[in-house]
Amino acid sequence: MSVVITGAAGFLGNRLARNLAKRGTKVVLCDQVAPSVPPGCRALVGPLSDTLGAAITKGTTHVVHLAAVVSTGAEQDFDLGYRVNVDGLTRTLERCRKVCARPPIFVFASSLAVFGATKDADDDTPCTPLNSYGTQKAVGELLVNDYSRKGFVDGRSLRLPTIAIRPGAPNAAASGFASSILREPLANKRAVCPMAASTQLWLASPRSALRSLEHALDVDGSAFGAYRCVNAPGVTVSVEEMLCALERHGGDQGLVDFKMDPAVAAIVGTWPARFTTARAEHMGFPAADSLEDMILNHIEDELTTKF
Amino acid sequence: MSVVITGAAGFLGNRLARNLAKRGTKVVLCDQVAPSVPPGCRALVGPLSDTLGAAITKGTTHVVHLAAVVSTGAEQDFDLGYRVNVDGLTRTLERCRKVCARPPIFVFASSLAVFGATKDADDDTPCTPLNSYGTQKAVGELLVNDYSRKGFVDGRSLRLPTIAIRPGAPNAAASGFASSILREPLANKRAVCPMAASTQLWLASPRSALRSLEHALDVDGSAFGAYRCVNAPGVTVSVEEMLCALERHGGDQGLVDFKMDPAVAAIVGTWPARFTTARAEHMGFPAADSLEDMILNHIEDELTTKF
Repeated sequence: MSVVITGAAGFLGNRLARNLAKRGTKVVLCDQVAPSVPPGCRALVGPLSDTLGAAITKGTTHVVHLAAVVSTGAEQDFDLGYRVNVDGLTRTLERCRKVCARPPIFVFASSLAVFGATKDADDDTPCTPLNSYGTQKAVGELLVNDYSRKGFVDGRSLRLPTIAIRPGAPNAAASGFASSILREPLANKRAVCPMAASTQLWLASPRSALRSLEHALDVDGSAFGAYRCVNAPGVTVSVEEMLCALERHGGDQGLVDFKMDPAVAAIVGTWPARFTTARAEHMGFPAADSLEDMILNHIEDELTTKF
Repeated sequence: MSVVITGAAGFLGNRLARNLAKRGTKVVLCDQVAPSVPPGCRALVGPLSDTLGAAITKGTTHVVHLAAVVSTGAEQDFDLGYRVNVDGLTRTLERCRKVCARPPIFVFASSLAVFGATKDADDDTPCTPLNSYGTQKAVGELLVNDYSRKGFVDGRSLRLPTIAIRPGAPNAAASGFASSILREPLANKRAVCPMAASTQLWLASPRSALRSLEHALDVDGSAFGAYRCVNAPGVTVSVEEMLCALERHGGDQGLVDFKMDPAVAAIVGTWPARFTTARAEHMGFPAADSLEDMILNHIEDELTTKF
């Protein structure tokens, strides 16, 4: 097993690399910024276009493509979004096609943002994205499927829910508040909620998202059937439910200020919040953590002093 | 009105240019091969990347993007398909974004090939294409929608049925037989049918496709709602029904040899044949010609001596 992870300085990529390294797998971590490197692994730092040549080689067996400009970033800089989210993916697929001895397993992190203007989604909901990020992810799914059909890669697109509670500092994701309204008060800091308390979200904990990525790497490609894409498991929760859960775990919801932000609503408000993920369940993807576990995991992973 | 048509040497583009010229509209016809040029119009001949700069200018108000590598062509030459069907479209959209004084009305000829492995389709059927041509068209729809949402163009993707009876010589479309099994016997020539007599197809006559294109140019963009794409009207007919209709109009179905072709079945066999096009009807797209009219029109347009 010789695994390449792009966007490996992000927390998901980095945790995945750590988990794989623990299993004894050699991982090449690619990112524009230096990732922390697990024992036995190596990092390639720079623009993806510069590092791909050294990263993906004849013997590469698995690629996990996480490198992306997130939702608000892609909405604000149209050209950058397409360059990173579409051209960057295409370049990675082309590199696999050109040099890998066998079609590598190729996991592409897609997103619930491929949907638009619907509150409910299932495995047959059409992709009608209403933001550039979702458009770019939907284009990516189509490419991964076509490269798979042609036998250039053994691709798997995984539509991840909004991930909460993301550790670390806020990023340019419009959905970032889904983490900060829990993460900040748990650390006794103030947070802003840019959408109404009644807003429902489709969430996965970092551990849930990791389990989905790992299952996507392991599952037999034929389990996808004709089309290489699946909605990953998640949970539907409202902002209100999140704040109640916060209080149960000692956080103060008084630290959360509601301040409506139309730019966030214009992106996150178009994403469905209620999913049925029958296909993922049928394919053996592990169920997502509950809201309760989402908070408990965060406390255990991020807020407990480690010895 | 200042209209640019790409792929204008094709029969659809050429007829559209003629119809528009009759209304007094100035049309710029772009193609790699020289199109016939209606009075008052002009042609730009060469690769689209060379002609776009002269074709689309500040004052361009309408673009009809027909330039494409068709299904079998895109399946056989993966790189050419993406270069023409995706990069060519992107370049055209970018040119509109960069130079047009007002977002031009942008009609993109998409295709039923965006669907896969389903026999029935409606306005909510997801795009899961099982060939490169369909993938490229689905990517195109996503781009046209996103460029429209951003206000760069006033886009309209029109998913056309298989067009029959195409005049002239066969092209590299896997669905070409849908024309040749009628066109050739009507001219007393032999034809090959590469799929079973029971095969159902979703068809539009050239006149129907033209009416759809013209309506897509004229309709108010807001009629599309949140997503700029619509399934164009068509009719469901079986090969068997086509051959019976052929006989009714004096053609000899004995001139059609059945010779199964797995390469054609692998493409056309994945396309749905039964559509409901409620959205198109609601938007005022004219109904498609019946099989009977499809044949009568062909006889009138192509086989009757014109004075």
